[in-house]
Amino acid sequence: MPRNDTAFLFDLDGTLVDSVYQHVLAWKEALDKEGVELSVWRIHRKIGMSGGLFANILLRETGLEITEERLARLRDWHAEAFNRQHTQGSVRPLPGARELLAYLTAQDIPWAIATSGRMETAAHNLEALGVDPSKIPVVTRDQVRHAKPDPDLFLAAAARLGVDIHQSLVIGDSVWDMLAAQRARALGVGLLSGGYGLAELQQSGAFRVYDDPADLLRHIDEVAARD
Amino acid sequence: MPRNDTAFLFDLDGTLVDSVYQHVLAWKEALDKEGVELSVWRIHRKIGMSGGLFANILLRETGLEITEERLARLRDWHAEAFNRQHTQGSVRPLPGARELLAYLTAQDIPWAIATSGRMETAAHNLEALGVDPSKIPVVTRDQVRHAKPDPDLFLAAAARLGVDIHQSLVIGDSVWDMLAAQRARALGVGLLSGGYGLAELQQSGAFRVYDDPADLLRHIDEVAARD
Repeated sequence: MPRNDTAFLFDLDGTLVDSVYQHVLAWKEALDKEGVELSVWRIHRKIGMSGGLFANILLRETGLEITEERLARLRDWHAEAFNRQHTQGSVRPLPGARELLAYLTAQDIPWAIATSGRMETAAHNLEALGVDPSKIPVVTRDQVRHAKPDPDLFLAAAARLGVDIHQSLVIGDSVWDMLAAQRARALGVGLLSGGYGLAELQQSGAFRVYDDPADLLRHIDEVAARD
Repeated sequence: MPRNDTAFLFDLDGTLVDSVYQHVLAWKEALDKEGVELSVWRIHRKIGMSGGLFANILLRETGLEITEERLARLRDWHAEAFNRQHTQGSVRPLPGARELLAYLTAQDIPWAIATSGRMETAAHNLEALGVDPSKIPVVTRDQVRHAKPDPDLFLAAAARLGVDIHQSLVIGDSVWDMLAAQRARALGVGLLSGGYGLAELQQSGAFRVYDDPADLLRHIDEVAARD
């Protein structure tokens, strides 16, 4: 019998680390500073896209002019506000995240991380998770041409692992992860831990939805073969 | 022809004021201080319940002992953290909230506010909205026996207006508002501005769902007769 070689390609924020709501309010702080009034729930629903794409869409929706300087300012203010939350210790791994990664490693199931964030905000999260990017493939936004909902991040992660994307699962908490999974012809597994509703994830193509990494680990046999 | 006498009974946080995400992180700060580790999305999905009930459920789910002192500490820490956000000016009325209330007043359509919050956190929000509680009925958690998802707050608001609850609309952003509306035999109108998904509101009984107060005002003829 051939060994099951399903690979797990993980989103980071909201999927392994409990950081979505802090990102949301960090973006709100950045947008307020720039004089862009936008309801918080609308920011939440854009999280998980690339920061640049995200800012583009927000500026377009609010009718403001998109300039390189404005985008750079927003990115800097967001990173500054988010990292402040981190130093206050309010951002932690999600329940079961470390255990799930340890389980996959122990089972020789390949896994990687593919995040729309840049290394400057991702570094803190990887540290909290105990993931060493010199040992585990971590693809960040700066390493690909297009971020989510384009499939590039997950395609790059599969390539780094040397696995077939058609044999891979994409684990994410946002609609953008599930759309990117479909565009990559991977299977999307949704987690509610980013604050999207169950139906939102299902309707964007999730093959299965769990609460958080702990819940996925409890039901791991539903999506990956045992050894 | 009899005049349309539909009354509008509004929830406050997430429905008229863009404050849900700040409440979420204020509760997280309070729970962290108390040593209760809970994922942020789980806090989000409990918001809109009475603070007491909310804390009860969280403590029960995390297996901690529920004592009066602990509940009082959590409430105080939450109020302190939330009001700090307010003084920083990050909490504002939702788009269209003031216009919607002004429209109802101009049309002689009765309206009231029914919130699971206490006056100490609601006062800032009412001020931001320009609502004077000496002129508009505002029912807060301290004025009824049971808060949402029990129907008491909305029943009390209808009584204060002197309208029939069976002729009333309950406007809210949370599942708890929609469940309370059903229990009161009112019709629930859901708003996405609190960050719940569309299907979550529909599945808890929303008769109609809009983005936010501005979107409801644009479609007001769908739920209330014109003069």
